[in-house]
Amino acid sequence: MASKPVWEQIGAGFVQHYFQQFDSDRTKLADLYTDASCLTWEGIGYQGNKAIMEKITSLPFQSIQHSITAQDHQPTPDSCVMSMVMGQLKADADQVMGFQQTFLLKNVDNKWICTNEMFRLALHNFGA
Amino acid sequence: MASKPVWEQIGAGFVQHYFQQFDSDRTKLADLYTDASCLTWEGIGYQGNKAIMEKITSLPFQSIQHSITAQDHQPTPDSCVMSMVMGQLKADADQVMGFQQTFLLKNVDNKWICTNEMFRLALHNFGA
Repeated sequence: MASKPVWEQIGAGFVQHYFQQFDSDRTKLADLYTDASCLTWEGIGYQGNKAIMEKITSLPFQSIQHSITAQDHQPTPDSCVMSMVMGQLKADADQVMGFQQTFLLKNVDNKWICTNEMFRLALHNFGA
Repeated sequence: MASKPVWEQIGAGFVQHYFQQFDSDRTKLADLYTDASCLTWEGIGYQGNKAIMEKITSLPFQSIQHSITAQDHQPTPDSCVMSMVMGQLKADADQVMGFQQTFLLKNVDNKWICTNEMFRLALHNFGA
């Protein structure tokens, strides 16, 4: 890990933490958002810790498991870290679905918080 | 369009322009990058206008067509616009493939440029 760029360590650490919390107890994700944070979930926007946590905790499944297929991280000109994740998820007894998710992370008071987040299920129908 | 938030107009306008240029003459994308811009293409990083354009123009296909399935846009705390795109592409006679792409756009000298970009082909194999 020591040889990886710092933004990659920050992004990968955030992604690991985020999905671990999401899959085990998603009420704990509240620590990651401020009142200015934005979430777009399947095209619908939510702003602020309260609205985001209401959305995340009201998602209609009992259990969920994410697995990450690929993740990319970059430093931005404003000292943020942008992370793009591609993966698969399985909610309850539903079939496995692909998803994509993007995060923008910012260091506020010595803590990395999520200022921007977007989530989409990947529905690629090629008639294959 | 007039009723859409400004960041959505900026993001959607950029996305339309980007893919139109990419599909018709991708050498023209050079206008969108500065020497500080970062591109991660299928997990490999490129920094700066020159390196990014060398990568984009050396992609091994003669013709390509993108179609956008979904796009999301958000304002960031540093007055940037983050855009996530999901779509399908067809290069030459290859089969149609899904892709995901994320952009961070910043207003520099009254022009929206791309500071950060990530691209991944979507390879979801569910044995379906």
